[in-house]
Amino acid sequence: MQSPVINELIDAFKLLPTIGPKSAQRLAYFLLQNHQQDGHRLASAIEAALEKVGYCQQCRNLSEAEVCGVCASKSRQADQLCIVEMPTDVVAIEQSGIYRGQYFVLMGHLSPIDGVGPDELGLPILRDRLAQGEIQELILATNPTVEGEATAHYIQQMAIEFNISVTRLAQGIPLGGELEYIDSGTLGQAFAGRKAV
Amino acid sequence: MQSPVINELIDAFKLLPTIGPKSAQRLAYFLLQNHQQDGHRLASAIEAALEKVGYCQQCRNLSEAEVCGVCASKSRQADQLCIVEMPTDVVAIEQSGIYRGQYFVLMGHLSPIDGVGPDELGLPILRDRLAQGEIQELILATNPTVEGEATAHYIQQMAIEFNISVTRLAQGIPLGGELEYIDSGTLGQAFAGRKAV
Repeated sequence: MQSPVINELIDAFKLLPTIGPKSAQRLAYFLLQNHQQDGHRLASAIEAALEKVGYCQQCRNLSEAEVCGVCASKSRQADQLCIVEMPTDVVAIEQSGIYRGQYFVLMGHLSPIDGVGPDELGLPILRDRLAQGEIQELILATNPTVEGEATAHYIQQMAIEFNISVTRLAQGIPLGGELEYIDSGTLGQAFAGRKAV
Repeated sequence: MQSPVINELIDAFKLLPTIGPKSAQRLAYFLLQNHQQDGHRLASAIEAALEKVGYCQQCRNLSEAEVCGVCASKSRQADQLCIVEMPTDVVAIEQSGIYRGQYFVLMGHLSPIDGVGPDELGLPILRDRLAQGEIQELILATNPTVEGEATAHYIQQMAIEFNISVTRLAQGIPLGGELEYIDSGTLGQAFAGRKAV
């Protein structure tokens, strides 16, 4: 009985992560019932973002300009390069405020089964950058998953050619974590990486 | 450092109910990182729905056609009219599959402080419909809130003029509800409405 146009809107909302059928219905009716203006604003924000946002030529992060704000900034350290998988990882690190160097965004991780090899991750661009000799430290901040570790290992081998020091983000118990609820893999890493106090 | 176009997209997502800053960021990056097609589909679904979906002339529900599917259907009982506040209420009742009559959607409830009076709720249209004499039973399914109850009372007075029988949805303990966790107002209603078994 429901209008096909409304059904299509609900289906489109369902494509988003964390939005199930009930939420999608709620969002669709929210826009139709009394927030038409918000709907127009959201639709044009999506179209504008998809049209204008491309990739930074230097770090491959999402950017409106050819070179993104971080790469163009003169106040950031040019000798540190942090390798992350996705733009959201850059956002998370920037929000922590702890890092003042440059980034390189892989837009994924090595995954031969999905046809993602070194070229798809822009590793030739990274190699050129390392060859320029400005980078002193490469910080590997790929995810601690099998694919993330494999990707980090590959990049580490590349850095060795250029005599660049390579670091990896520390692994262990998260701040505020309770031992009782921490998975055994993490606990194992925390034991293996224990430090003298 | 984040692009203004991406920020606007995040802000637009934040207008939606249940979407906070973190979720909005996640949804925005989801569309930009690797789901551009989904983004275009969502944007056009929103615009199409906002453009094509209007109100049914008979029941005021959201509808693409001048008269909605429920009002136009010949298989539904024409002598029962269920009064609800919002189109989402119609969806909920339809999903239960328990009701086969017609609807009338108020698109809100009486709320003088917000400038919502009988005219804004389409009550003149409802009065005309009741005057036609086809409706035998009016089922009041407004929300059990102060405003919903006041609206139901107002409509009940109107139905009395036309000698139409008026019913209200039963109030009490929800199916699967546990007494321990039910609020005292609901428990009071359940006691007051107790039935012989």
